[in-house]
Amino acid sequence: MQRKIRMGMIGGGAGAFIGAIHRMALNMDGLIELCCGAFSSNPDRAKDSGKSLFLPEERVYASFEEMILAESKMPPDKKIDFISIVTPNHEHFRPAMLALENGFHLFIEKPITYNLIEALQLREKLKEKKLLLCLAHTYSGYPMVKQARAMIAENQLGKIRKVVVLYPQGWLSNLSEKEGNAQAAWRTDPSKSGLSGCMGDIGTHAAQLAEYISGEKISAICASLNIVVDGRKLDDDGNVLCKFKNGASGILMATQIAAGENNDLSIQVYGEKGGIEWKQENPNQLMVKWKDKPVELLFAGTNFTSHLSSYALHNCRTPAGHPEGYIEAFANLYRNFALTISAGLEDKEPSPEMLDFPGIEEGIRGMAFIENVVFSSGSSDKWMTHIVP
Amino acid sequence: MQRKIRMGMIGGGAGAFIGAIHRMALNMDGLIELCCGAFSSNPDRAKDSGKSLFLPEERVYASFEEMILAESKMPPDKKIDFISIVTPNHEHFRPAMLALENGFHLFIEKPITYNLIEALQLREKLKEKKLLLCLAHTYSGYPMVKQARAMIAENQLGKIRKVVVLYPQGWLSNLSEKEGNAQAAWRTDPSKSGLSGCMGDIGTHAAQLAEYISGEKISAICASLNIVVDGRKLDDDGNVLCKFKNGASGILMATQIAAGENNDLSIQVYGEKGGIEWKQENPNQLMVKWKDKPVELLFAGTNFTSHLSSYALHNCRTPAGHPEGYIEAFANLYRNFALTISAGLEDKEPSPEMLDFPGIEEGIRGMAFIENVVFSSGSSDKWMTHIVP
Amino acid sequence: MQRKIRMGMIGGGAGAFIGAIHRMALNMDGLIELCCGAFSSNPDRAKDSGKSLFLPEERVYASFEEMILAESKMPPDKKIDFISIVTPNHEHFRPAMLALENGFHLFIEKPITYNLIEALQLREKLKEKKLLLCLAHTYSGYPMVKQARAMIAENQLGKIRKVVVLYPQGWLSNLSEKEGNAQAAWRTDPSKSGLSGCMGDIGTHAAQLAEYISGEKISAICASLNIVVDGRKLDDDGNVLCKFKNGASGILMATQIAAGENNDLSIQVYGEKGGIEWKQENPNQLMVKWKDKPVELLFAGTNFTSHLSSYALHNCRTPAGHPEGYIEAFANLYRNFALTISAGLEDKEPSPEMLDFPGIEEGIRGMAFIENVVFSSGSSDKWMTHIVP
Amino acid sequence: MQRKIRMGMIGGGAGAFIGAIHRMALNMDGLIELCCGAFSSNPDRAKDSGKSLFLPEERVYASFEEMILAESKMPPDKKIDFISIVTPNHEHFRPAMLALENGFHLFIEKPITYNLIEALQLREKLKEKKLLLCLAHTYSGYPMVKQARAMIAENQLGKIRKVVVLYPQGWLSNLSEKEGNAQAAWRTDPSKSGLSGCMGDIGTHAAQLAEYISGEKISAICASLNIVVDGRKLDDDGNVLCKFKNGASGILMATQIAAGENNDLSIQVYGEKGGIEWKQENPNQLMVKWKDKPVELLFAGTNFTSHLSSYALHNCRTPAGHPEGYIEAFANLYRNFALTISAGLEDKEPSPEMLDFPGIEEGIRGMAFIENVVFSSGSSDKWMTHIVP
Repeated sequence: MQRKIRMGMIGGGAGAFIGAIHRMALNMDGLIELCCGAFSSNPDRAKDSGKSLFLPEERVYASFEEMILAESKMPPDKKIDFISIVTPNHEHFRPAMLALENGFHLFIEKPITYNLIEALQLREKLKEKKLLLCLAHTYSGYPMVKQARAMIAENQLGKIRKVVVLYPQGWLSNLSEKEGNAQAAWRTDPSKSGLSGCMGDIGTHAAQLAEYISGEKISAICASLNIVVDGRKLDDDGNVLCKFKNGASGILMATQIAAGENNDLSIQVYGEKGGIEWKQENPNQLMVKWKDKPVELLFAGTNFTSHLSSYALHNCRTPAGHPEGYIEAFANLYRNFALTISAGLEDKEPSPEMLDFPGIEEGIRGMAFIENVVFSSGSSDKWMTHIVP
Repeated sequence: MQRKIRMGMIGGGAGAFIGAIHRMALNMDGLIELCCGAFSSNPDRAKDSGKSLFLPEERVYASFEEMILAESKMPPDKKIDFISIVTPNHEHFRPAMLALENGFHLFIEKPITYNLIEALQLREKLKEKKLLLCLAHTYSGYPMVKQARAMIAENQLGKIRKVVVLYPQGWLSNLSEKEGNAQAAWRTDPSKSGLSGCMGDIGTHAAQLAEYISGEKISAICASLNIVVDGRKLDDDGNVLCKFKNGASGILMATQIAAGENNDLSIQVYGEKGGIEWKQENPNQLMVKWKDKPVELLFAGTNFTSHLSSYALHNCRTPAGHPEGYIEAFANLYRNFALTISAGLEDKEPSPEMLDFPGIEEGIRGMAFIENVVFSSGSSDKWMTHIVP
Repeated sequence: MQRKIRMGMIGGGAGAFIGAIHRMALNMDGLIELCCGAFSSNPDRAKDSGKSLFLPEERVYASFEEMILAESKMPPDKKIDFISIVTPNHEHFRPAMLALENGFHLFIEKPITYNLIEALQLREKLKEKKLLLCLAHTYSGYPMVKQARAMIAENQLGKIRKVVVLYPQGWLSNLSEKEGNAQAAWRTDPSKSGLSGCMGDIGTHAAQLAEYISGEKISAICASLNIVVDGRKLDDDGNVLCKFKNGASGILMATQIAAGENNDLSIQVYGEKGGIEWKQENPNQLMVKWKDKPVELLFAGTNFTSHLSSYALHNCRTPAGHPEGYIEAFANLYRNFALTISAGLEDKEPSPEMLDFPGIEEGIRGMAFIENVVFSSGSSDKWMTHIVP
Repeated sequence: MQRKIRMGMIGGGAGAFIGAIHRMALNMDGLIELCCGAFSSNPDRAKDSGKSLFLPEERVYASFEEMILAESKMPPDKKIDFISIVTPNHEHFRPAMLALENGFHLFIEKPITYNLIEALQLREKLKEKKLLLCLAHTYSGYPMVKQARAMIAENQLGKIRKVVVLYPQGWLSNLSEKEGNAQAAWRTDPSKSGLSGCMGDIGTHAAQLAEYISGEKISAICASLNIVVDGRKLDDDGNVLCKFKNGASGILMATQIAAGENNDLSIQVYGEKGGIEWKQENPNQLMVKWKDKPVELLFAGTNFTSHLSSYALHNCRTPAGHPEGYIEAFANLYRNFALTISAGLEDKEPSPEMLDFPGIEEGIRGMAFIENVVFSSGSSDKWMTHIVP
């Protein structure tokens, strides 16, 4: 890289959980510079956020429109390369479209938009503008997730037969949206979150992970969503049976009312010759269960050059035994996105490892998943085709 | 107890996996004496089995009919108290009925019969004869399973909201029934196993465990069974969505094609205040996840008189840290059954802890589960009532 | 085997922890018959114990002398083959010698005697009488301990370089011997326990395990024993540095004041090519860490005929995933001892797997370890040769 | 904070493992700006390093002397606040002294210097100049390490009785220093590493962690160091018995020849009422074993405001279940150091949580530990006082 990649942020003002995570992730590798932001629709909070991030006052904007307009007029040596959108779901689309129209690449929180049609519109615009989009499916940034994917892609497990992906959280066990929890408030509000609560928020992660690792696409679903906590307006729990295109079957469970759970996403994928098991809360280990050999434990680590795929190694920073975590997984998304942008700036071909970040197609699959799951849940028919436009 | 409880065994000749387990389990506590057997329909194997068990020749029988007839005429100080049936499913009913008609209590492998109607017949006969039946749902014999059940019964977790029970095995990943595996051969043969393979063999364990621990009954199911291995005649894999009577939802997964898995039964039950997690392969630990307190780990052990319920303690033999296993869990079924029989002989009231073994109702629920699950799997309707006669 | 092996028990009356464990262990496999006992020096308790074990009154004795005398005169078809001694340490030697003089093989609790000289006397007598002795080093009965030993014996790890064996218990964190705990009372009483408390009780297990698995003998020690709980008379905690004959170094830690620990014996052995790790509280797993390959997990199981050594397989009863525990490990000692005795009765050669039980040499090494460790702890010299006569 | 804290780096050029870690750690929170560096004594490598870090050419220096001289003359709005020294041990002292003399605070790799006397000189200079020093004992930056320390400081475990700290690595199982491994080369070279190899490199981490968590100081040691790999010049393995000032005893093991291990630092500390267990490779969990209550698992997480001490919470970035790792622990050192410097700049009192980073006293204790351990290892006396000047 010849220079740092420059970015602006929309949303993520002081107190927002995910904005702070994004900033740690993009800072970590020193490849990206946060140059400007429209951090909040509240002007004081926007200003304070900019100050606490040591940004020059003139690049802390009162609105995303103002920011995109101003930044599009910056001279080349100051102009940002991409914009990161970390607002609630219903505020993704407008800034995203405006950013694209003004020539900025996009890094965007999941689910990509408020509804499917917005995602389809984004795809059109991306194509038209020949711009890049990275979607924050953080869990696919973990090295051992990439290792699992690579092993399956290399047919080490044989034909995939079964996928079990479980995502229990407990933080919505109470009616927290009425107890002053701002995160809970917007995520359970249909006007901000979209058609689904739990399935939109974390079910989409589970579905993306299942498809990413297994290399197979979900083709049919049978869903049952629940509102467990009285007074809630969107699903906070759901169970989904899945069929995959190659004939494999699966279970996808996502819940936010599993009292006592933190963020216990796990996945098991079984093929003819063996299976893999990965748990997000212990992310540096991949358990490989072989039909005819002892179980193997693989660990992330820059030193395991002979055990790990190039995709896993490319996303490790430390030798084995020096655990990397969630922020590093997030940083892998930012780094690969920045490296790809940088390659473009220098007219180079990005490597396949750089290009391995979730994009618009994952975004559309996620939005279709939300709509199909909600539809299936309301239907008395068992199976519904997972139509993805 | 004033004397050992005496028993005879039907099935379980040399080479049969489960017969040997039964004998270790019934031997362990020294409360039961194996006095006779009809171990095999092959007369030589029957005789050899008797010899290797050091039984007197005259009490090693060529058929179950012969055994029951002969034993029913024994003098009171030699006559057996109960009969243990460890044959394949299709050979449960006839010896069971004959045993009951001749006044013997029954210990019987699961699933209880070949089909539901046979189980209902057994119930009638048991009632008529006022005899006892213990069904080999081994996993409910583990102390920490009983601890989980007791904590939920005492409302420590609040209202139950969600149950996840997963039972992956890998031993049928190949078409083993054609490769000389006798276990595989009968278990995948519809004429011996019944309507279902995997769901009958291990899905019933999962369902019983879910209901036993949660204290809630499954009221509706949405099932999808698969034959994954080409050439197999019965399901070897299945996914089931469940609703429970109290409104809780659940997932039940059972598979025998999860290559690389041994016998990884696990269960998670979530209530309003927290959840429990238990894994059969690490059976002496119960993880309790609280909504508002740190996670607790409870361990089996005779010394934990202040942490554990009377049901758990009654089923522990060793101080914590001296692991008990599958055979001990099995032995708990035999011990509680023998203690209950013994109490009857002495006109005493058995304690609730002694009476805590699976019986005919669990047997009927299991058979209904098999039939309902198979029916649901073939239906295009999503939900089917779990009718249990 | 042509008949069950017959035994008598000395000690182990109602309420004694270890006597009950012995009986479950010897019962489990149906190869041994408990025929008689001198369970307690208290005649009522002795009688009650016999009754609760359903023994004929005439074979429940008031003293070990009476029992050995009476049993030595039994006719061959009733006479016991061996005697199991489960009394406190100071009451091992006299019954042991009398048993040997009367021609009975011996199964004996560890540490083998009250002091080293008694153990040497036993060795002489065993040789003279050509009798067998099995010492209850239970942990060497676990299949995965045997697997570890076999792998090292086959040089799979290369030359052994380092051994770390840790044995924390917490049950003596208080002055329990003054709080009515009978176990604590005799085990902390120098007149009953011997020179050492913790090192004698569990340090000897750790030392035996280290030598058994590594195949190397401890040749020098540097010990530091502590009395942590005020008012205690014997060490309840100790740390020992070790050197092994082949040049490997080691650490041995044993403590009974690690509040909150149950019985967390663990061992790690490292060689040139990799290391093994085994934890008693999760005994069916052996972790093998390779220098140049992924970590492997091996599991106990009768089905793992291609992964496991003949020694491990011989000591498994169940397929993988059906956990075996402490009682099964104990039962392996009894079973192998009984099979060896039986082979002798039938003039057959016992297999190496049968002969693989701890005996008099382990007993002597244990007693020497106690004496050397206590001596070293009191010395200001760093290293002391671990002299074993 | 009113502005970013500015720093320069000495050492850590392209290819150096630890330099890259430092940069990720200091970048993460966006509080520190890397402004200049003397990355290598090789001018090309120095220049290339600066370029890849996007530093202005004029602030990439050919030597540390040049850098310190130039930077000390910078105007206040550009001048760096502190210098980070990440060179091999023998190159710590000279740049450190020069930095202090020119008024720069110091962040420095451990062990602090090549020998004890240099560390004592640094202490004098620090005092004289009233400057701050942070020592890179990374493991004390983990939130759950701080939680353990806080719980013990609050006497939750009662009086501390026993400490077990084990640090096995396997990366020096071969004579890697002759196989082109640059890390191995200098760390095993007495002229660069100092008196000790393994004990200096990782034994000092273990000792610092033991004292930091337990709150007790090591007062006497009995050490045995080994050179296991033929041809090596410094210890690659060692076992140390410890006594603590309050009477507690301990074991400290550090090895780099445990083939198959990555970086498996673990610690157990036992008090009268219970014990804690923490494992670096699973750093977000703290196991608390209570004498009279169930085991508790505490997890790092910004949301656990009622379970965790202010020290743990201050060092968390994410909600529980979003694992933080080694780089975050490292970043905690940098953040706390920067916050303390910043408080000084603004004439504020730093909070106790900010001040909780390792400093010169830990550096001196570490150097004394190295010298005492090497001395003890060569002595035939058992115990040696751990003299710390």
